[in-house]
Amino acid sequence: MISVIQPTGTLALISQIEAESLSRFSQGDLYDLYRNCSLAVLNSGVKTDNSEKLLSQFEDFEINVLRNERGLKLELINPPKTAFVDEQIIYSIQNNLFSVLRDIVHLATTKNETEMLASITHENISIGEIRTNQIFNILRHAKAIKSGSDPNVVVCWGGHAVNEIEYNYAYEVGFQLGLRGMDICTGCGPGIMEAPMKGAIFGRAMQHDTNGRYIGLTEPSIIAAEPPNPMVSELVIMHDIEKRLEAFVRIGSAIVIFPGGPGTAEELLYILTIKLTKSNRHEQLPLILTGPKESEEYFTTLDTFVRNVLGNEVARYYRIIIADPIKVAQLVKESLKIVKDHRTINSDAYCFNWSLNIPNELQDHFEATHANMAALNLHHDQAPSMLAANLRRAFSGIVAGNVKEAGMREIAKHGPFKLSGDKDIIDNLDKLLRDFIKQKRILLSQKEYVPCYELTTQ
Amino acid sequence: MISVIQPTGTLALISQIEAESLSRFSQGDLYDLYRNCSLAVLNSGVKTDNSEKLLSQFEDFEINVLRNERGLKLELINPPKTAFVDEQIIYSIQNNLFSVLRDIVHLATTKNETEMLASITHENISIGEIRTNQIFNILRHAKAIKSGSDPNVVVCWGGHAVNEIEYNYAYEVGFQLGLRGMDICTGCGPGIMEAPMKGAIFGRAMQHDTNGRYIGLTEPSIIAAEPPNPMVSELVIMHDIEKRLEAFVRIGSAIVIFPGGPGTAEELLYILTIKLTKSNRHEQLPLILTGPKESEEYFTTLDTFVRNVLGNEVARYYRIIIADPIKVAQLVKESLKIVKDHRTINSDAYCFNWSLNIPNELQDHFEATHANMAALNLHHDQAPSMLAANLRRAFSGIVAGNVKEAGMREIAKHGPFKLSGDKDIIDNLDKLLRDFIKQKRILLSQKEYVPCYELTTQ
Amino acid sequence: MISVIQPTGTLALISQIEAESLSRFSQGDLYDLYRNCSLAVLNSGVKTDNSEKLLSQFEDFEINVLRNERGLKLELINPPKTAFVDEQIIYSIQNNLFSVLRDIVHLATTKNETEMLASITHENISIGEIRTNQIFNILRHAKAIKSGSDPNVVVCWGGHAVNEIEYNYAYEVGFQLGLRGMDICTGCGPGIMEAPMKGAIFGRAMQHDTNGRYIGLTEPSIIAAEPPNPMVSELVIMHDIEKRLEAFVRIGSAIVIFPGGPGTAEELLYILTIKLTKSNRHEQLPLILTGPKESEEYFTTLDTFVRNVLGNEVARYYRIIIADPIKVAQLVKESLKIVKDHRTINSDAYCFNWSLNIPNELQDHFEATHANMAALNLHHDQAPSMLAANLRRAFSGIVAGNVKEAGMREIAKHGPFKLSGDKDIIDNLDKLLRDFIKQKRILLSQKEYVPCYELTTQ
Amino acid sequence: MISVIQPTGTLALISQIEAESLSRFSQGDLYDLYRNCSLAVLNSGVKTDNSEKLLSQFEDFEINVLRNERGLKLELINPPKTAFVDEQIIYSIQNNLFSVLRDIVHLATTKNETEMLASITHENISIGEIRTNQIFNILRHAKAIKSGSDPNVVVCWGGHAVNEIEYNYAYEVGFQLGLRGMDICTGCGPGIMEAPMKGAIFGRAMQHDTNGRYIGLTEPSIIAAEPPNPMVSELVIMHDIEKRLEAFVRIGSAIVIFPGGPGTAEELLYILTIKLTKSNRHEQLPLILTGPKESEEYFTTLDTFVRNVLGNEVARYYRIIIADPIKVAQLVKESLKIVKDHRTINSDAYCFNWSLNIPNELQDHFEATHANMAALNLHHDQAPSMLAANLRRAFSGIVAGNVKEAGMREIAKHGPFKLSGDKDIIDNLDKLLRDFIKQKRILLSQKEYVPCYELTTQ
Repeated sequence: MISVIQPTGTLALISQIEAESLSRFSQGDLYDLYRNCSLAVLNSGVKTDNSEKLLSQFEDFEINVLRNERGLKLELINPPKTAFVDEQIIYSIQNNLFSVLRDIVHLATTKNETEMLASITHENISIGEIRTNQIFNILRHAKAIKSGSDPNVVVCWGGHAVNEIEYNYAYEVGFQLGLRGMDICTGCGPGIMEAPMKGAIFGRAMQHDTNGRYIGLTEPSIIAAEPPNPMVSELVIMHDIEKRLEAFVRIGSAIVIFPGGPGTAEELLYILTIKLTKSNRHEQLPLILTGPKESEEYFTTLDTFVRNVLGNEVARYYRIIIADPIKVAQLVKESLKIVKDHRTINSDAYCFNWSLNIPNELQDHFEATHANMAALNLHHDQAPSMLAANLRRAFSGIVAGNVKEAGMREIAKHGPFKLSGDKDIIDNLDKLLRDFIKQKRILLSQKEYVPCYELTTQ
Repeated sequence: MISVIQPTGTLALISQIEAESLSRFSQGDLYDLYRNCSLAVLNSGVKTDNSEKLLSQFEDFEINVLRNERGLKLELINPPKTAFVDEQIIYSIQNNLFSVLRDIVHLATTKNETEMLASITHENISIGEIRTNQIFNILRHAKAIKSGSDPNVVVCWGGHAVNEIEYNYAYEVGFQLGLRGMDICTGCGPGIMEAPMKGAIFGRAMQHDTNGRYIGLTEPSIIAAEPPNPMVSELVIMHDIEKRLEAFVRIGSAIVIFPGGPGTAEELLYILTIKLTKSNRHEQLPLILTGPKESEEYFTTLDTFVRNVLGNEVARYYRIIIADPIKVAQLVKESLKIVKDHRTINSDAYCFNWSLNIPNELQDHFEATHANMAALNLHHDQAPSMLAANLRRAFSGIVAGNVKEAGMREIAKHGPFKLSGDKDIIDNLDKLLRDFIKQKRILLSQKEYVPCYELTTQ
Repeated sequence: MISVIQPTGTLALISQIEAESLSRFSQGDLYDLYRNCSLAVLNSGVKTDNSEKLLSQFEDFEINVLRNERGLKLELINPPKTAFVDEQIIYSIQNNLFSVLRDIVHLATTKNETEMLASITHENISIGEIRTNQIFNILRHAKAIKSGSDPNVVVCWGGHAVNEIEYNYAYEVGFQLGLRGMDICTGCGPGIMEAPMKGAIFGRAMQHDTNGRYIGLTEPSIIAAEPPNPMVSELVIMHDIEKRLEAFVRIGSAIVIFPGGPGTAEELLYILTIKLTKSNRHEQLPLILTGPKESEEYFTTLDTFVRNVLGNEVARYYRIIIADPIKVAQLVKESLKIVKDHRTINSDAYCFNWSLNIPNELQDHFEATHANMAALNLHHDQAPSMLAANLRRAFSGIVAGNVKEAGMREIAKHGPFKLSGDKDIIDNLDKLLRDFIKQKRILLSQKEYVPCYELTTQ
Repeated sequence: MISVIQPTGTLALISQIEAESLSRFSQGDLYDLYRNCSLAVLNSGVKTDNSEKLLSQFEDFEINVLRNERGLKLELINPPKTAFVDEQIIYSIQNNLFSVLRDIVHLATTKNETEMLASITHENISIGEIRTNQIFNILRHAKAIKSGSDPNVVVCWGGHAVNEIEYNYAYEVGFQLGLRGMDICTGCGPGIMEAPMKGAIFGRAMQHDTNGRYIGLTEPSIIAAEPPNPMVSELVIMHDIEKRLEAFVRIGSAIVIFPGGPGTAEELLYILTIKLTKSNRHEQLPLILTGPKESEEYFTTLDTFVRNVLGNEVARYYRIIIADPIKVAQLVKESLKIVKDHRTINSDAYCFNWSLNIPNELQDHFEATHANMAALNLHHDQAPSMLAANLRRAFSGIVAGNVKEAGMREIAKHGPFKLSGDKDIIDNLDKLLRDFIKQKRILLSQKEYVPCYELTTQ
């Protein structure tokens, strides 16, 4: 089956060089990256977290970028049938398909970190600033930064594989946020990444408000495992998890964390690292942890863990609300006013948080190898913010070992990652991970979860 | 509590005379009509079918139309709190509030049937044509007739008090219709009047299609018992049930009937009367009866009744599809192509079915009094179309006795309506109504249903 | 040649009864009215003020309203070729053609003055209010009243047959008004009715502002003599000159008078009558008389006339600005702020001046017959406002005698109208009219102007 | 005087690094370039061709890019007053100001020719293709390439200092093109660069068509001498004259040449070089030379020159139409259909002519130095296309010597450029330039024109 797909959105035109760079016959592996991200988008809405299995079903899938008199079109060979209604591609999928094209082309044709650094050494600009500018450029190029409106983007973090009660709760929170005109930004996949978007769509519908934004931020290494859900109206592909996390906190005006697994723990530790960083002590980025009555235990687990490991004071950086979607929405709304005032006073953009200081330790790409994992400093001989940063890396590695292709290959080859550190830290980590397993928050596709890590005290 | 509401939509301006005609202090009872319809809208989404009880909760509610420098505004005194989010009125409710104003003003200031007849006696125009023109005028004035698009409006009929399985099924059908870009028109209340709209909203959202129309047609005498659901984006108030039913079949391009009670039976008999009318034998108005597996019995009941009473041939006018939303949607889509061709050939408007012949018996207003009910001819000594028309009136009376204020007063005063006719007809009617009661399809608000009718053979 | 024209704007749908009322084969003379107004629109941009001659060129022109599957279309038989570019009708003409249809249908199908009066006798509403409501209804139906914006409509009055210097001056004033975002409303024809619109189009273009409104108000009896110019984006047909004049002052936020002839004098006397009316003493309706250096004499003539006849104090109601377009525009802009404040305080609509009191003497239709003209009271034995009202009628009669079909017939049959009054009034009138003739401001189509009036002192 | 200007269009957001690169305090000379282009835009509509004189009036002008909570704003210190209406900046100027910002930032932050070449050496891509891609990127980034529409952009070339008759003629041609819905692209300055835009605005207005595009392509070295006229709705700044000329022929669907001077001759020779290039023999790019009756001589001069120098056959590449704007517009319209068909068949974009082959000789930047001018090969020992290319360079040099800052400096220092070549070529060139001087088509700001060139036969 061959489908020809017309462009949507802004990338209606592509240059010769851009088209050729994505060709199956081009040198380099850009085509594979492009093909796989596109295939993930075509599997929108399919529930999975086994990317390998999903992709293996469509080995004969191919995608070609063709230029024509109207600009460009895509040729899909053997695409998944679920992407179509009566032979017509579903528009949200079509649109996300062109977002993939846009971002892959941008990735391939703009200056990278090194090139940017080279071109501006004479200025007094740090590597951190360059990276932040890169994130800004990608988001701006994707039109994901809107200058016209007040701080309005609520980042929702949480698991892709939650139970129905949690899904419905997140839907309700999204509904209340949507009723109040807020935009939703998630990691783009199923579960908690979908529910608040769906709720917000409906809340907006009751307000006859068609301007709702449902932003999904993803990265090539995870998109196949977590195909974008069909609510996503703006899909952006960042380079890797570090750029993705930075994009969340720069673009988001408030953060709501729902129940999840190690990925959610990584996200919480990322934002806590930032909040524990001294230079951010005046920054405003509201953080709410919320879930239904039935999930209260989850938040107790998480709360206990971060208090035990990072100190009790860390608790002042977040607020836990159980079983009260209206209160969550009202609190977000209230705190967005503070965010707005703060940014106005500091002349910081409403739509992109320039002033937040993100330590290099969060920006540097952490590759989940056995050596890197083993070398992580999980001791108390460092500032709490640095310990949080290292714990973030630990969870990042666990996520990679669980669902990212490269990480899973490492585990298959060399056995579980080894993590070591101070006894109380390791014990707490152990408790947290065991609770996650008990609560079935880790990788549901396997019959029984075989951990991809080993913990040792040192 | 006093709320001031700004106008939405097209009625941003009102003349002195219009404003005064709606004033609480004006002579006439237009204010009461206006107030009650507005109150019903403000109760959007509230589940009820007891209008009296609902209205009695808000006896101190008042509404004032004020003219100001920007045009007009509404002042609401003691409105229901459910219409607001954080003190802000929900937009869909606000919008419907102005639809009420628009239609009540139109009703009050345009020529009525008699005036129109007087002004054009010299022409060769029948009373039926005048009525159809009136319906056209109301709908056009409400901008509910759109000239730009192909036949696209799917009328969904069914009960306001269905069970969850039926609700979800109607949602699924709506989702499939929405995915295919179809507009939904219902009687505007809860239950089946809501579910397909909600489904279509999500179907459209997946297509990033914000043009969906969710048309609710209602009438003053029922709006309080069936408050508009919050999905309705275009609310139109017709004079009475006969004008409302005609509006459905003129504006609709296809009709889907879901499970319901006596109201749904009235609707089925209305459309069957039209289809049995000889001069309509070439007309195209697809009719599908559908429900989940669990509701199959309901359709058997209905199918048996109309076959037994009106003859087996009547079955060729509808198609029953059980438990297959995609098939329903695809069939509607296919048949809309035929509708389009038919109208093109006959130069009939895509958006308003002028050529359908509606017998006077369906257009004449039937008042549900004991005398009128008793006088109904339920015998075989007439054309099947006329028997269907009379059965339509019988069900109309039963609905009135159940949920309309005037009808309920009648019943309270004089006891149940009496219906008589040929034995087989009455027996079949009895069987149908008993099945409805058994299936709990009649008036759920009372502990036990006390029928508002008595059947006798004659 | 037969052209089929698709609808523009809002009247995309027409009912059976409406279509039939406009048919060539219908009883009544609505068809002729409709045909002639349509023909005038098709002659847009043609310079003429001899309607008879213009219309006689197109005796075989016919127009048919046809209903079809998309709504309606117009069939034009033998239309003027100037309305087309490469066989395609020019959009502004097409649009105005449908405005004619809209207004003629509205005229034919809504309640007239008598019917309205009948339907609301029980209320405390005067005939004057009913007429104002009618004007509101026509304008609202034509969407010519916009509720969203601040007072912004500048009425430009002046002659249809001015010289190039005056045309260019009015263009410059329009340009400056357009630069400042103001909308233009004129009598829709050529000359001063066109120039400020053209100027404003360019002023708006420099502001990339495509929302400019170019409103043309006309009446059936003059439209053929002054075909709408092609700048008109909103054409509205009022019943007669009195309704048209009222529409100007209700919809306008400020009035600018350029050089003109008797029609312009009628307009000036109309607005002065209103301003001299006691109950309007707090009303705000800025009035500027302006022209190029070369036309200074014209304003001296006019100024002298009204001061002499109505008293010196009348001069405080207007301001004369010579040769300074920027000053005119700035003054209009400044005074619109006062208008806005005034209406805000009085809760009067920005877009329709409800509070202006228009005496019955201005609202009553004045038919230009010899008897009516002779009976005009042009003496000082009345309030200045009433004398102004009678002078308005005198000029109205002169315009009718010059360019309106009915008036011209009267003159041809019975000779010039006779006007008599106090000596000083008649002398001043005589001087004014002679100056007009000297300045070639009366009827240019004839070699030598033969006055349609005789003045006698009495 | 300090004005703060809010952004228009798409560049509402700017990164830290971008903002800093434009700062007055940054190293490099980007600020000067940015300041001068901005100043030229602020002088929109001012008639001049002496950039030095114009710029020297505003020596204390400064511009600062400030980032704030809404994105960015510009601070103008001592800007020209003509850019403002009642203290408000004129929108078209404001908009073009942000186009300058957009293009200067793009220039500063994207890969240049060398960087692009470096990043794709492994591919089989020529320097010519890279340059064409660069032009595509600039135009796409400026949103000047629209994928949705048919070939529609008419490039109008001609002088900036024409007489009133020629200006009015170009206005009329523009009016006829506008009536037919065509977009206009010119060099953005006054004279012929303005007139067709103004005409088209008015033609579009008669069609109520607000989608007209008025594209102005300029380059930093000429923008000060030819400030953008206020009709320009899309301003794009290309690197230099070669990129600008390529942009014209890639984006244009047809070319109309009006009377002009050496710049116009350069343009004609540019397009003739392309047409004479063998590989373009099947390309479609209609070329019309047109002017009023009074300018017929100009076209005779030009026609004679190219026939004499390049051979008679060259005449088949253009068509001369005298004094017939409707015919010009109809011919353009007809030939655009052929262009459309041609591109459809060849799958070439309607909005960007990829397939046109532009020889390196036209793409290589020609710097107007005495050495380069003297070295030009103006002999017959080469293909006509190459001779045309060299003549193009000769005229480019003459334009630079006349109005570009760098060129004028050269002339001031070293005296006139020296051009030599075959006798018949030089004689014809001499005749052409003398005719230009006689017709006052060269540099009107000086009392008497002192040529910036000397011709010698060799």
